[in-house]
Order: sequence, then C-alpha cells, then structure tokens
Amino acid sequence: MKVLVLGASGGIGSAMVKLLESTEPEWEVHATYNNNAFSTACQNTFWHPLDVTSEHEVKALAAQIGHIDWIINAVGMLHNSDFTPEKRLKQTSSEQFMASMQVNALPTLLLAKHFESNLKKSEQPRLVTVSARVGSIEDNRLGGWYSYRASKSALNMLIKTISIEWGRTFKKAAIFAFHPGTTDTSLSKPFQANVPEGKLFTPAYVAQCLISQIEKSCLQNESNFNGKFLAYDGSEIPW
Amino acid sequence: MKVLVLGASGGIGSAMVKLLESTEPEWEVHATYNNNAFSTACQNTFWHPLDVTSEHEVKALAAQIGHIDWIINAVGMLHNSDFTPEKRLKQTSSEQFMASMQVNALPTLLLAKHFESNLKKSEQPRLVTVSARVGSIEDNRLGGWYSYRASKSALNMLIKTISIEWGRTFKKAAIFAFHPGTTDTSLSKPFQANVPEGKLFTPAYVAQCLISQIEKSCLQNESNFNGKFLAYDGSEIPW
Repeated sequence: MKVLVLGASGGIGSAMVKLLESTEPEWEVHATYNNNAFSTACQNTFWHPLDVTSEHEVKALAAQIGHIDWIINAVGMLHNSDFTPEKRLKQTSSEQFMASMQVNALPTLLLAKHFESNLKKSEQPRLVTVSARVGSIEDNRLGGWYSYRASKSALNMLIKTISIEWGRTFKKAAIFAFHPGTTDTSLSKPFQANVPEGKLFTPAYVAQCLISQIEKSCLQNESNFNGKFLAYDGSEIPW
Repeated sequence: MKVLVLGASGGIGSAMVKLLESTEPEWEVHATYNNNAFSTACQNTFWHPLDVTSEHEVKALAAQIGHIDWIINAVGMLHNSDFTPEKRLKQTSSEQFMASMQVNALPTLLLAKHFESNLKKSEQPRLVTVSARVGSIEDNRLGGWYSYRASKSALNMLIKTISIEWGRTFKKAAIFAFHPGTTDTSLSKPFQANVPEGKLFTPAYVAQCLISQIEKSCLQNESNFNGKFLAYDGSEIPW
C-alpha cells in the first residue's frame, strides 16, 4: 500500500504519519510539509516540501510520486499570524476570506484533479480530507468564524461533486469529508476552553479514527462512503 | 423606501431596476454596474460604477449612499471570456475556483459588513442575494460546475452565518438566499437546451418573484425568512 498524507507537519497529519509508520511498517508513506518542520521521528516516510495551494506544485508532486492508494489531506487554517476567526461581521476581510478558501477548499480540488490518474490503478482508491462540523450550513447555530465556515462548506461541495464524477467514471473510488472533533492541536488551541470533558481528542486518537473510517470503506461497499461527510465516530453530518 | 440593486447591468439586476422604476416611482433606487453598460431606460435610478469584489469600493459606496432599506445582490458569474463551467475535474483550475469565490461569494460578506450600519435605521432591513439551487450540496445529483457550485455553497454559508449574527444583534433584519430558477439571461444562455417547457423564466418574472419574497418577509415575521434558502416560488431549498 502506498499512502500520501498532506499537511503532515500539522497536528493531525503528523499523527497520521506516526500511526502509519508504527502500525504498517511495510507501507510506503509519503508526506508533505510546508512552513513547519517535519517530524524527524518518522524516518521511514518520504517527505516532500509542498505548497498545496499551488496547482503547479501539486501537479509536479503527482508526477513524482506516481501510483497511490490513499490520499489523506490534513491541511487546514483557522488562524495564523495574520488572521483570527471572526466573531463578528466587522472583523471579516476580503483577505481572510480568500486566504481561507485557498488553504481549506482549493487543495482538495487540485489533489483530485492531478492525482486522479495516479489513483486509477489502486484496488481501493481513497481521497479523504479533514473538514469540520462548523462547515455544516444546516448545523450552524452559533454563527461567527465566517471565513473558516464558508471555506469548509465550499470544500464539502467540492467533495460531493468529485464523488459524483468518480461514482460514474471510477467505480472503486471513494472520496469523503472527515470531521475530527476538537483535536488538541495548534489549530484548536485558542478555542479549547469550552470543550466538554472527554471531547478534546489527541491527534493520535483522531488519526486512528480516520484510518478506521478508510478501512471500513474498504471492507464495505465504497459507495456507502463516497461523497459523505463523516464524523470521527462514523456518524453522518448534514451538509 | 430606498433600495440598492447590485449587478444591475446583468439580466436579473436590470429587470429588478425596471420593475422598481415602473411599480414604485416614489422609491429611491440605487443601482450598480461594472463592465457592462447600464440601462439608459432607467433614468430615475441613481447609477454607481462598482467592482463589488473590492472591499475598498463597497465601503466607499456605503459611505456615499447612507441609509438603505433593501439591498438586492444580483451579481453572479458562471462563465466569461476566460472560464466555462467545468464538466469534469480535468477542466478545473485554481484560477476559475478563486475567481468564482471572489465574484459569487465574497461580495455578500462585504455588503453585510459595510452596509450593516446603513441598514440599522430601516424599519424593514433586507439583504437578499441571488444564489442557485446548484449551490445545494444536499441536492447535488448531476455533479460538474465545480467552481460555481462551491462558490454558491460558500455564499449560502455566509448568508446563514450573517443571519445568526443579525438575529441576535439586529432584530428586524432578514438576509436570505434566493434561487431564481433558470432565467433567460446571458448567464444561462449556453445551458438552456434542456430546460423543460415553461421553466425558462423571463428576468421580469424572476424580478417580480424576488420582490414578492421580500414583501412577504415584511408582512410576516422576518425570522421566517432570515437565513433561509428560498426558490422563486417561496419553497425552501436544503443546504
């Protein structure tokens, strides 16, 4: 098996690589990093520098890596040195909106486009992107976080649309959106105060949940997973 | 009453201005245009050049216009000289995705942000944006049109999120997404072949449907409309 993890310098991505190294030592794991250093502990992993928002770089990586079975996209941005999630309209900006789209939604489109032919020879081709329940329009009751929410809704639409095309042309494939729950990473760090006890997950636990969902999708009919929005426990989230 | 129509050089927007001029001659109607010429027939309308994707220009227009009752955003891009809607993943591009977001989703965020205080003195503040049923993730069965669909899903999330903030802080306000059906405009022109008989609407009809929904929202409790995704006939569309 050959697996590619995007955003493997982040909390969930690096946990995913560690999990695969320890539980599947025979697998060929590729991982990408951007600004942050990658985990030097994962020495059996092939590390690639990648700006996943660059179509040119995604295309070049696809040419370099070749055949792949599973792609796991754990890239996501909620805040950085320039942006914090908006509590109110007044805090929104064009820049934050467009940057969130570029980092949280666009890359899955680029990965699906440029790795489609790489996935075609796999027996169980999978593309899973970390989304977030706050990207559910139906489930939105608290408001705020304008740019992040909108970017995850856009991501969810891309995943649904890709699933329809692949459902027609690419029979064994499945793409789905994965909600990790609140995970103890730098992304959620400033927003952990109100998380109920037992509901702040470790990255290692979330990585295990994500792999479990992919494994289930390989044991069951892939069409039960293709185009779905699944939480860490496998429950389905409305759009 | 003072009304602002964005994208009034387009099919639905210009029909809206004509309708308001003919049925509400006492109202003060402001309208914006971008690339196309505006309708010289509408001489009682105040015309403003505007790039509605520019935060700077939206802010300046809000300062210029002052108090407003209803804002109707009819700006939308499905195809232009650079882009056609994508039938397949292979036809997608970063550029089309980001441009669609900027034109179809971002402006409603900018309008809500910068016109919020202008709307505050209205008895019946309304912000309505033309969305599209193809922006429904739940309802997506055909696939394709990646960038347009994702941009309308992002728009729908913005509208839902704004509705929650306004529901708390701005009691009489309502913002909703409006699906016009397939309307005989330049936007739908290349895609009208399979529209069932009687389901290709004139811009004048759609403008009347949109105004009817706003009027209904003023007669009924605005919270029945705030944050909803409504079709031309008032039926609710799933997210």
